[in-house]
Amino acid sequence: MGSQLTSVSVFAPATVANVGSAFDVLGLALEAPGDTATIRRTPEPGIRIADISGDGGRLPRDTEKNTAGVSVAALLTHLKKSDFHSYAPVGMDISLEKGLPIGSGLGSSSASTVAAVVAANELLGSPLSRQELLPFAMEGERIACGAAHADNVAPCLLGGFVLIRSYKPLDIITLPSPRDIWLAIISPALELCTSDARRVLKRSVTLESAVSQWGNVAALVAGIYKNDITLMGRALEDTIIEPERAALIPGYQAAKDAALATGAAGCSISGSGPSLFALCHSEQRAHDANKAMEQAFSAAGISSKQYVSRVNQTGARVMERE
Amino acid sequence: MGSQLTSVSVFAPATVANVGSAFDVLGLALEAPGDTATIRRTPEPGIRIADISGDGGRLPRDTEKNTAGVSVAALLTHLKKSDFHSYAPVGMDISLEKGLPIGSGLGSSSASTVAAVVAANELLGSPLSRQELLPFAMEGERIACGAAHADNVAPCLLGGFVLIRSYKPLDIITLPSPRDIWLAIISPALELCTSDARRVLKRSVTLESAVSQWGNVAALVAGIYKNDITLMGRALEDTIIEPERAALIPGYQAAKDAALATGAAGCSISGSGPSLFALCHSEQRAHDANKAMEQAFSAAGISSKQYVSRVNQTGARVMERE
Repeated sequence: MGSQLTSVSVFAPATVANVGSAFDVLGLALEAPGDTATIRRTPEPGIRIADISGDGGRLPRDTEKNTAGVSVAALLTHLKKSDFHSYAPVGMDISLEKGLPIGSGLGSSSASTVAAVVAANELLGSPLSRQELLPFAMEGERIACGAAHADNVAPCLLGGFVLIRSYKPLDIITLPSPRDIWLAIISPALELCTSDARRVLKRSVTLESAVSQWGNVAALVAGIYKNDITLMGRALEDTIIEPERAALIPGYQAAKDAALATGAAGCSISGSGPSLFALCHSEQRAHDANKAMEQAFSAAGISSKQYVSRVNQTGARVMERE
Repeated sequence: MGSQLTSVSVFAPATVANVGSAFDVLGLALEAPGDTATIRRTPEPGIRIADISGDGGRLPRDTEKNTAGVSVAALLTHLKKSDFHSYAPVGMDISLEKGLPIGSGLGSSSASTVAAVVAANELLGSPLSRQELLPFAMEGERIACGAAHADNVAPCLLGGFVLIRSYKPLDIITLPSPRDIWLAIISPALELCTSDARRVLKRSVTLESAVSQWGNVAALVAGIYKNDITLMGRALEDTIIEPERAALIPGYQAAKDAALATGAAGCSISGSGPSLFALCHSEQRAHDANKAMEQAFSAAGISSKQYVSRVNQTGARVMERE
């Protein structure tokens, strides 16, 4: 064990879940922004949240309440049970650098969790594949918002567009990542909890609107394969979820209209909001869309942060090993 | 106009609409069976249903009640309005040879309609493209079952898998046609009217089941692009429509179970039934699946016809020109 690693840093990116019509089944990874987790091996056993920066003191330092802590603990428990040969009583200090705004709909909890799980796995010599890490990262989502969703953690781990066909059994399908798409992302200074955003949703929908939605979801997947940004844009049309959630985001419709007026192919809510994403044909168009959305929110008295990114092809990545 | 055609025969294939989870948005064309329409130019103007064979006398001979007659009339009216240069008062005698069982869920009315519309367009020198013929073929669907659906006529015209993203505006997306798939098709001697099969459907569904359905629809499209028959098979899972319609088809569950037991990747109802289709990995497997389904229906006292086909890559085709 002479070559044992003592420290690993991993960057995990922001993710856009739901992706318009594809509520709860599709997510995509951005290149930036993101969170970084550094895990150091310690002589004393146990998992500790050693440090968190960039969260304004808002995330729990208690390992059992922190999404990254919970997920790393679940991973270690699994490895212990499965008698992983290089597993030994190991201590880990987790440090998190938050680059993502919390509660913004950009997969902030997923990014921290995935960064930590990938770092812990790497520190132990990578006993599990990225796909195999997914259930442990999902444990973090369970405590973050009450349900073990995969639509942020899966693209965060794997990169690209990722489809979750089913949870029982878990069936994850990676889709191609069109290179020509640029995303404009705007995060207005509003905060929504996913569970609140979920509470506004009606429990039932008309068959007619459901059919219209799955026609759009099917077209969105076809657009991804065809690398047809215009088709993807019109297939974002969501008559079920977006109208309910838009009502929670002051200035939403004006911002969306403004983005579309700049030539964006489509625009919708990222995750459960309040961030918005717009699909754009070029980097310049994405900046234009952001500027238009920023002005719309500003007119409603709401400040915002903006990001421009392509689709991340690889997911979380190891930044440093020692 | 010396080279004017006097007669054109067109074969149009059976189609499988709905395709499991993708209710009302996806259809595919088979290579066989199908219907043939022959249209002869006549000196006297007007459109006549001159002859229908293979229907047991059941289809209307009145042009205004016959789906093929209605669609050809709609096409001619459009060409007249749009001042099509080679349009002249033209008479047409339409002869139909039904190769498809009526009311079987294999797109019988669509096949006759598409064959006739393609033949009429060809006879006039092909003023319109296949895509442009779609609205006229849809007129036939409107009188056949009360709504201008496109999920049979579009694949029948265009071949392959065709996605209907929306009707307003009409947005038709052609998908690739996996070459390796073989379909087992069984048509039990039961008759269902589409409007009856539609009446059993609940008007609303839970959001949870709708999400599960669009996850499957998305995965079905991904499976088509990946040429992954196993993925396509499991993505046929339909928790909304199939349970309601299966109840209208005695022996359905036994036949489906029997097909899956032979190794079919998936099995569901074709169109609104009562035919079933199974997705299979080879021609032999498709014959095996048909045999198993035939025995299951036979055990329920129901006779059946079986067909084996690949996915049709081209749609309706001109067989003879004079």
